[in-house]
Amino acid sequence: MINLEDYIRDIENFPKQGVLFKDITPLLADPKALDCCLEELIRLTERQKITKVVGIEARGFLFATMMAKELGAGFVPIRKSGKLPYATLKEPYSLEYGMDVLEIHEDAIEKGDKVLLHDDILATGGTARAAAKLVEKLGGEIVQCNFLIEIEFLKGASKLNKYEVRSLLSY
Amino acid sequence: MINLEDYIRDIENFPKQGVLFKDITPLLADPKALDCCLEELIRLTERQKITKVVGIEARGFLFATMMAKELGAGFVPIRKSGKLPYATLKEPYSLEYGMDVLEIHEDAIEKGDKVLLHDDILATGGTARAAAKLVEKLGGEIVQCNFLIEIEFLKGASKLNKYEVRSLLSY
Repeated sequence: MINLEDYIRDIENFPKQGVLFKDITPLLADPKALDCCLEELIRLTERQKITKVVGIEARGFLFATMMAKELGAGFVPIRKSGKLPYATLKEPYSLEYGMDVLEIHEDAIEKGDKVLLHDDILATGGTARAAAKLVEKLGGEIVQCNFLIEIEFLKGASKLNKYEVRSLLSY
Repeated sequence: MINLEDYIRDIENFPKQGVLFKDITPLLADPKALDCCLEELIRLTERQKITKVVGIEARGFLFATMMAKELGAGFVPIRKSGKLPYATLKEPYSLEYGMDVLEIHEDAIEKGDKVLLHDDILATGGTARAAAKLVEKLGGEIVQCNFLIEIEFLKGASKLNKYEVRSLLSY
């Protein structure tokens, strides 16, 4: 029996002083833990009908592609400004100091697509909320916001209260 | 029968004037094309024994995680400078103007690991060569450098002539 928490490493003061970062690379490096984590993430979806899995750059790509494959869905990347080559929709989101922009290709979602939005970590929720808006602007329906890890004290889920939010692990 | 080339979109002048960019997002968004592409990438490995699949940030993550899952291997990210939270090895590589640095976690590869190195596109080969060096410095053996697309006129394979290099599509 695998305890996924055993494969998540705490890194103090990353990316900056005072932050305790949850490092998932030990989990990714272990084939059994990787399998188990993917299976558990899929279980969170409760096999709802999903046509597109949207992953947020960059760590969100890791399980989002595997989930798309498992669910028989397509994969769509949401990226930071300037990375996507085709015509995009843009959505600003707040950083600690100032703003940044997320982008999605304007043909990435079809009207009526059932979308699973995935990222590895739910922190303040600002990124996921901007990503969800992009999906909705293209006519997609957010079936679930799905995270590997939720950092509860940051209350990111409150920014996503329009949506079903599921996380595998909470800290 | 799926022709993967039908799902790759040419984007002129991206990321800069004069470059014809191969956009794989239509392929990712289509479940059948995604399945087919993954199957073909796995076929390139000829089911050699592989214990770790190493993916290069960010688009290299997309198929590398799916390949790791399919091959029963672990996944290891190689990232740009400052993104990995734990202790890293660093390797510089050339950009058109100046240098950048790739990093790998120093505990990501075990001595004797059989490594499949994957990125989506082989262009000049500088990034892949730096990534391969990082794997070897940690005691891993590069079983194959594996790419979805090779841009042949840039002759990246010549920078990787120590290794087995396989690409699914060539332009």
